[in-house]
Amino acid sequence: MRPSGRAPDQMRAISIEPNFTRHAEGSVLVSFGDTKVLCTASVEEKVPPFLRGKGQGWVTAEYGMLPRATHTRGSREAAKGKQSGRTQEIQRLIGRSLRAAVDLQKLGERQITLDCDVIQADGGTRTASISGAWVALRIAVDKLMAQGLIANDPITRKVAAVSCGIHDGTAVLDLDYDEDSTAGADGNFVLTDDNNIIEAQVTAEGECYDEEGLLRLLRLARIGCTDIFAAQDRATGR
Amino acid sequence: MRPSGRAPDQMRAISIEPNFTRHAEGSVLVSFGDTKVLCTASVEEKVPPFLRGKGQGWVTAEYGMLPRATHTRGSREAAKGKQSGRTQEIQRLIGRSLRAAVDLQKLGERQITLDCDVIQADGGTRTASISGAWVALRIAVDKLMAQGLIANDPITRKVAAVSCGIHDGTAVLDLDYDEDSTAGADGNFVLTDDNNIIEAQVTAEGECYDEEGLLRLLRLARIGCTDIFAAQDRATGR
Amino acid sequence: MRPSGRAPDQMRAISIEPNFTRHAEGSVLVSFGDTKVLCTASVEEKVPPFLRGKGQGWVTAEYGMLPRATHTRGSREAAKGKQSGRTQEIQRLIGRSLRAAVDLQKLGERQITLDCDVIQADGGTRTASISGAWVALRIAVDKLMAQGLIANDPITRKVAAVSCGIHDGTAVLDLDYDEDSTAGADGNFVLTDDNNIIEAQVTAEGECYDEEGLLRLLRLARIGCTDIFAAQDRATGR
Amino acid sequence: MRPSGRAPDQMRAISIEPNFTRHAEGSVLVSFGDTKVLCTASVEEKVPPFLRGKGQGWVTAEYGMLPRATHTRGSREAAKGKQSGRTQEIQRLIGRSLRAAVDLQKLGERQITLDCDVIQADGGTRTASISGAWVALRIAVDKLMAQGLIANDPITRKVAAVSCGIHDGTAVLDLDYDEDSTAGADGNFVLTDDNNIIEAQVTAEGECYDEEGLLRLLRLARIGCTDIFAAQDRATGR
Amino acid sequence: MRPSGRAPDQMRAISIEPNFTRHAEGSVLVSFGDTKVLCTASVEEKVPPFLRGKGQGWVTAEYGMLPRATHTRGSREAAKGKQSGRTQEIQRLIGRSLRAAVDLQKLGERQITLDCDVIQADGGTRTASISGAWVALRIAVDKLMAQGLIANDPITRKVAAVSCGIHDGTAVLDLDYDEDSTAGADGNFVLTDDNNIIEAQVTAEGECYDEEGLLRLLRLARIGCTDIFAAQDRATGR
Amino acid sequence: MRPSGRAPDQMRAISIEPNFTRHAEGSVLVSFGDTKVLCTASVEEKVPPFLRGKGQGWVTAEYGMLPRATHTRGSREAAKGKQSGRTQEIQRLIGRSLRAAVDLQKLGERQITLDCDVIQADGGTRTASISGAWVALRIAVDKLMAQGLIANDPITRKVAAVSCGIHDGTAVLDLDYDEDSTAGADGNFVLTDDNNIIEAQVTAEGECYDEEGLLRLLRLARIGCTDIFAAQDRATGR
Repeated sequence: MRPSGRAPDQMRAISIEPNFTRHAEGSVLVSFGDTKVLCTASVEEKVPPFLRGKGQGWVTAEYGMLPRATHTRGSREAAKGKQSGRTQEIQRLIGRSLRAAVDLQKLGERQITLDCDVIQADGGTRTASISGAWVALRIAVDKLMAQGLIANDPITRKVAAVSCGIHDGTAVLDLDYDEDSTAGADGNFVLTDDNNIIEAQVTAEGECYDEEGLLRLLRLARIGCTDIFAAQDRATGR
Repeated sequence: MRPSGRAPDQMRAISIEPNFTRHAEGSVLVSFGDTKVLCTASVEEKVPPFLRGKGQGWVTAEYGMLPRATHTRGSREAAKGKQSGRTQEIQRLIGRSLRAAVDLQKLGERQITLDCDVIQADGGTRTASISGAWVALRIAVDKLMAQGLIANDPITRKVAAVSCGIHDGTAVLDLDYDEDSTAGADGNFVLTDDNNIIEAQVTAEGECYDEEGLLRLLRLARIGCTDIFAAQDRATGR
Repeated sequence: MRPSGRAPDQMRAISIEPNFTRHAEGSVLVSFGDTKVLCTASVEEKVPPFLRGKGQGWVTAEYGMLPRATHTRGSREAAKGKQSGRTQEIQRLIGRSLRAAVDLQKLGERQITLDCDVIQADGGTRTASISGAWVALRIAVDKLMAQGLIANDPITRKVAAVSCGIHDGTAVLDLDYDEDSTAGADGNFVLTDDNNIIEAQVTAEGECYDEEGLLRLLRLARIGCTDIFAAQDRATGR
Repeated sequence: MRPSGRAPDQMRAISIEPNFTRHAEGSVLVSFGDTKVLCTASVEEKVPPFLRGKGQGWVTAEYGMLPRATHTRGSREAAKGKQSGRTQEIQRLIGRSLRAAVDLQKLGERQITLDCDVIQADGGTRTASISGAWVALRIAVDKLMAQGLIANDPITRKVAAVSCGIHDGTAVLDLDYDEDSTAGADGNFVLTDDNNIIEAQVTAEGECYDEEGLLRLLRLARIGCTDIFAAQDRATGR
Repeated sequence: MRPSGRAPDQMRAISIEPNFTRHAEGSVLVSFGDTKVLCTASVEEKVPPFLRGKGQGWVTAEYGMLPRATHTRGSREAAKGKQSGRTQEIQRLIGRSLRAAVDLQKLGERQITLDCDVIQADGGTRTASISGAWVALRIAVDKLMAQGLIANDPITRKVAAVSCGIHDGTAVLDLDYDEDSTAGADGNFVLTDDNNIIEAQVTAEGECYDEEGLLRLLRLARIGCTDIFAAQDRATGR
Repeated sequence: MRPSGRAPDQMRAISIEPNFTRHAEGSVLVSFGDTKVLCTASVEEKVPPFLRGKGQGWVTAEYGMLPRATHTRGSREAAKGKQSGRTQEIQRLIGRSLRAAVDLQKLGERQITLDCDVIQADGGTRTASISGAWVALRIAVDKLMAQGLIANDPITRKVAAVSCGIHDGTAVLDLDYDEDSTAGADGNFVLTDDNNIIEAQVTAEGECYDEEGLLRLLRLARIGCTDIFAAQDRATGR
C-alpha cells in the first residue's frame, strides 16, 4: 500500500491551468497533486552569443524553488549568491528536454526561456516543470504563429515527464515526497507522444536495480505520461 | 483622469487569500489589482547570532520577484549570483515595518521569516508585500499561540502599506505600473491601525514636492490603508 | 538635554573643504561634527548602456565606509565580496538625490560618478555625503563649463540633506551616533534651496510617530539645510 | 565504421595506474584511450554537519577539468568564481555512484573525498572518473583497514561506469570526443559487478530513442564494464 | 634628471600625522609626496581560528584604494565583488612585513588589523602603507601597554619600506607615478632600523638587471629608510 | 645537514617531460624532486581588450593546485568560488617572468596562456612552474614559427626560477616542503641565461637577513638555474 493510498500505476490529480499570469507570452500553473509549479515562456528577439547569425533559435530553462515551497524553509538561492547543483541539474534537464521537441531552425533567431518556479513542493517538481513548460511553450509559439512571426510550427512533438521509483520493493508511479524520500530507486522519464524517450534517468538510492526493474519503471512512466498528455490537451484546448 | 479610470483616492481591488500554500506556518496570496505577491511566514526555533541568549525573538523578511512577473523578463537574481540594491532595500523595509508591530520579547527566542515573492507585478509590490506579510505573520503567530508556545500575543498592532504619488500634477493613491513609471513623485507609507506612521518615504522623480504635497500623500495613504485593514480583517476572520 | 549639549534645532559644526584630493574633477572633505566623508566627482566621457545614443548624461553615486571609520572595526566589503544592503540603499539615495538637481540633457553624453567614502563616522554619514557630493559635483561641472565642454549649466538647484529624529520624546536635528543609536524615530530629508523636498524618509525605530511628528522633523530639517547651504556657498566661493 | 575504427562493442584501451601521486590515501591515473583522469581519495576524520554524531561516515566527490585538457582552452572555474552546472552534475553523479557501493556505518565517522581531475579529455570523463575513483577508494579503505581503523570492509561491491550512445544509427560503446559530439543519443551507465545498475541515464541529442534502444545501450554497457572490472582488479592486485 | 627634479637618492617629503581619525586604537595619515594613505590599527580580543588557544596573537593587514585615488577612476572592489590580485599581494606583504617586527607571544591572544586605505595615489602606495602602518601599530601597542593589557613591549624593531627602481638607466629612490610607470626595473624594500632586510623584491619591467643593480637599489633603499625612521620618530614623539 | 641529505648548493632531480598532454600547443610535466607541475601553453588568436589593435601580443599565466597535491587536502578554489591571494600572487609572478623573455611585437596579435597546475607539491611549485612554463612556451612558439604564423622568434632569452632560503642558519638551494616550512628566510629568483635577473624576492620568515645573506642566496640561485637551463635544453632538444 502506498502512503497516499494510490495504486502503483496511479498518477496524482494533474491540472494545468493556462494563462495563470498575464505578462508572459505563455504561462501555466501545473499541479501534480500538491506539487505546484508556475511555468512561464518568455520570448526574446535575440539568441545567445554562440548562435548569433546562424539563423536558428534557442530554447532554455531556469528553475527555482520558493524558500518555503518545502516542509521546512530552505535558504533563498539569490541571497546565498548561487544556484545549487540540484537546481542547475534540473534546469539543464528541462531545457534539454524541450529542445528535443523543437525545430530550432523553424523557430527563427529568437530565444524562448522557460521559467519554472516551484510554489509548493511535494515530490516530482522537475517532472511537473517539464510537463507544464511544454504547455507554456506551446501557448507562446501559438502566439508567435498567430502574429505571423513564425510560418511553420517549430514544435515537433508533445513532451511529458514523470517520476517512477521502487518503494518498499514495488515499482510505483509519480512519487510524492513521502515516497520519494524513502524510495530505493528513483527515476525520471521524459517521453514523447509518439512513444519515444527523450531522457531516462534512474538512480539507485540504497538499493540497486536490474534490467527488469528499469523496464518496469519505463512502462509505468508510459502510463503516467498518457494522463499528462491528456491534461496538456485540455489546457491547450486541442 | 487616471490611466485606469480610478478616482485619485481610489484603491485597486484588494484581496488577501489566506493559506495559499500548505507548508508555511502562515501564507497568503495578496493582490492589489494585477499585483500578486505570495507571502509566507516561516517559524524557526532559533535566532540570529547577535540575539542568542537574549530571551527575545526576531522578525525578518526576504523579497524576490519571479523573472517573468514583469512586462519583460528580468534576469533571475539566483542566476546572477546577487540580489539587486532594489531587492535589498525592499526586504529591509518589509522586515523593519513588521518588527515595528511585534513585541520581540513576547515572541520568545524564535525567528519568523516573511518571504514575499512577486508572482505578477503591476506597481506597488513592496506595499502589497508588507500588507500581505502582516496577515501571514498573524496566522503564524496564532498557530504558535494555539500550540501554547507563546503565552501573550506579541503582535501589537496592524500594519498596512500603500504607495501614493503625484501623477500629472494630481496626488493619487495606489499607483499601478503605468502611473508609477511616469509619476513626478512617488512615495510609500507604512501605517498602523492606531493612526500612526511606521515609515514614510517620498521621492521626487523629475519634479520636487513641498510640505503640502507630502501631507496630501500621507492623507491619501490613510484612506488606502483603511481599505487594506478591512481586507486583512476579512482574511483573518476577525 | 541632548548628549552633545546641543539645542534641539542645532546642527553640529559643518565644514566642506574643497579640492581635498587632486586627481578628481571635483573633491571635498565634508564634516558634520566628527562625521567626515571624502566626496569625489569623476567625469567620464561615456554613459551607461541604457542611455547610449540618447543625447543625455547620467549622474550616479557609490558609497563606502572604511573598515575602522566606526567605533568597532567592520569588515571590509571588498574582502567579503559584496556590498551590504545598507550600502546599496545609501548609494541609491545619493545618486537619486543629485540627479534631481541636474538637467541630464544639458550635461551631455557623459557620466559623473560621486564617490562618497566615510573616513570617520559619527551618525549622519548619508546626509553628509549628499551635502558634500553636491559641492564636488558643482566643482566638476564648473570645470567642464570652463573648458567649454558644457554650454549651459546643468545644475538646476542646490541640494542638502540632514537627519532628524525623535530622541527621548524630543524632535532633534542632525543626530550623532549616540542619539542615532537610541532614537525612537529617525529620518533623512533631502531638500532644495528653493524650499522643496527631494526625498523625505522617516522610520519608526521602536516607537511610531504621527503626522505632527513628521512635520516637526521636516521643519527642523529645513533649519539644518539652511546652515548646510551656507557652508556649500563658502566652499564654492559663491 | 566508427571514427576510431573500433567495433561497436569495443572499449578503448583502459589503464588504471595506482599510486600515481604520493600524498593521497588512494590515488590512480585512469585512462580510457586519450581520456586521462587523476583520481585521489582523501580521508578526513570528520563528517559533514548533517551527519555529526550519527555514527556513520560519508563519501563525496569533486570534479574538475584542467583548462587545457580539451581541444580548445576552457576558462578556469576557480578564476570565473563558480563551478559550471555540468561540473556540479558530474560530481554529484560520482559521489552518488560510489556511496551506492559503501556501507557508511562500517566506514565509521570519517569522510572520504574523491577528487577527479581531468588531465586530458577525449570523451567519457565522467565514466572514467567513476571507474578510477572506485580504485582510489579501494586503496584508501585498504589502508584504513591495515591500520586497524576500520574493522569490517565497508565496500560492498565493485562499481564501473561507461558511456554508450547511438552514433550514425548504431549503438556504440565508450564514445570518444568525435563520436560524443555527433551522437544522436548519449548515455552513461554505472554498473556493479553483481549485475545490477546504480545509475542509468540516456539523453536524446537530436534524435529520440525507444525501449529497444535503451536496452541495447544497457547491454553494451555491461560488456564495457566487464573490461573495466578486469582493469580495476589488475590495479588493486586482486 | 628625474621628472620631479629630485636627486637620484632623494626621497619625496614624508609626513606621518598621528591620530588622524579618532575611533581606531592607532591611526596615521602618511604622505610620501602626493601619495597619501590612511593607516589604522584595530585591536580585537580574539585571534583567527588557526591560533586559538595557542597563547599568541596575530597581526594582519588589509589594503584598499579609493576609486578616485588615481588619475582616472578605478572600479570599486566592493562593487565588483572581489579584491584584485594586486590588492591581495599588497596586503599580504604589509601583514608579513609587520609580523616580522612583532613578538606574537608577547602580544597575547589578540589580533591587530592594519587597514591601509589609499586616499590619493602617486606611486609607492605599498611602501607608504608599511611605513605608516608601523606607526599606527606602535600607537595601538602603546595604548595596550598603558592600559596594562600587555606587560612587555612586543614590538621588536622599527620597520620602514621604500621603492627604488632603474629609470632611464639610473637607479633612483622613491619613485612617483611618472617614474614608476616608465621604470625599467622596480623594487620594494622593507628594512629594519638595525640594518637588516625583511623583504626585498625587485622586478624587471622591460629590462633585466644584474647583481650590481640589485645592490645599488638596496643601498638607495637604506638611505630612504633612514629618512622614514626619522619621520616615524617625529610621529611617535620618541 | 639538510633533511634530504643534499648539499647546500644541490638541486633536487629535475626532469621536464615535453608533450605530456596532446591538445595544448605546448605542454610539459616538470618535476623538481617530488614537486610535479603540468604546464601547458595555449595559443589564442586574440588579445585582451587593452591591447586590441596595438599590433602586439600578450603572455599570461594561471596557476592552480589540485586539492590533494598537498599533504592534507586543501579546498578546491573553484568550489570556494575564488582564488586565494597566494594563487593570484603566484600566477602574476609567472606571467610577469615570462613576458620578460618575449618580444610582444614579434609575437603578433595573439595571446599565449600558460596554465601551471600542480599535480603534487613538495615545495618550490612556483619556481618549477616558471621553469616548466618557459619550455611549454618555447614548444608553442616553435609550432607557430613552423606554421609560418610568426616570422621572427619572439623569445629573447631562457628563463629559469629556483627558490633559496636560510635554513638552520645555512643558505640552501631549492627548498623542499620540510625546509620551506621551517626556513628563516625564503626567496625566489627568476634568472636569465645571459646572467641577468628578472625577479628577486626574499622574505624574512622569523629572522631577518642582511645584504650579505641576499647575495649568498642569489649566488646559489645562479647555480641552480644552470642545472635548470640544462634540463630545459634536454626537453627542447636544443
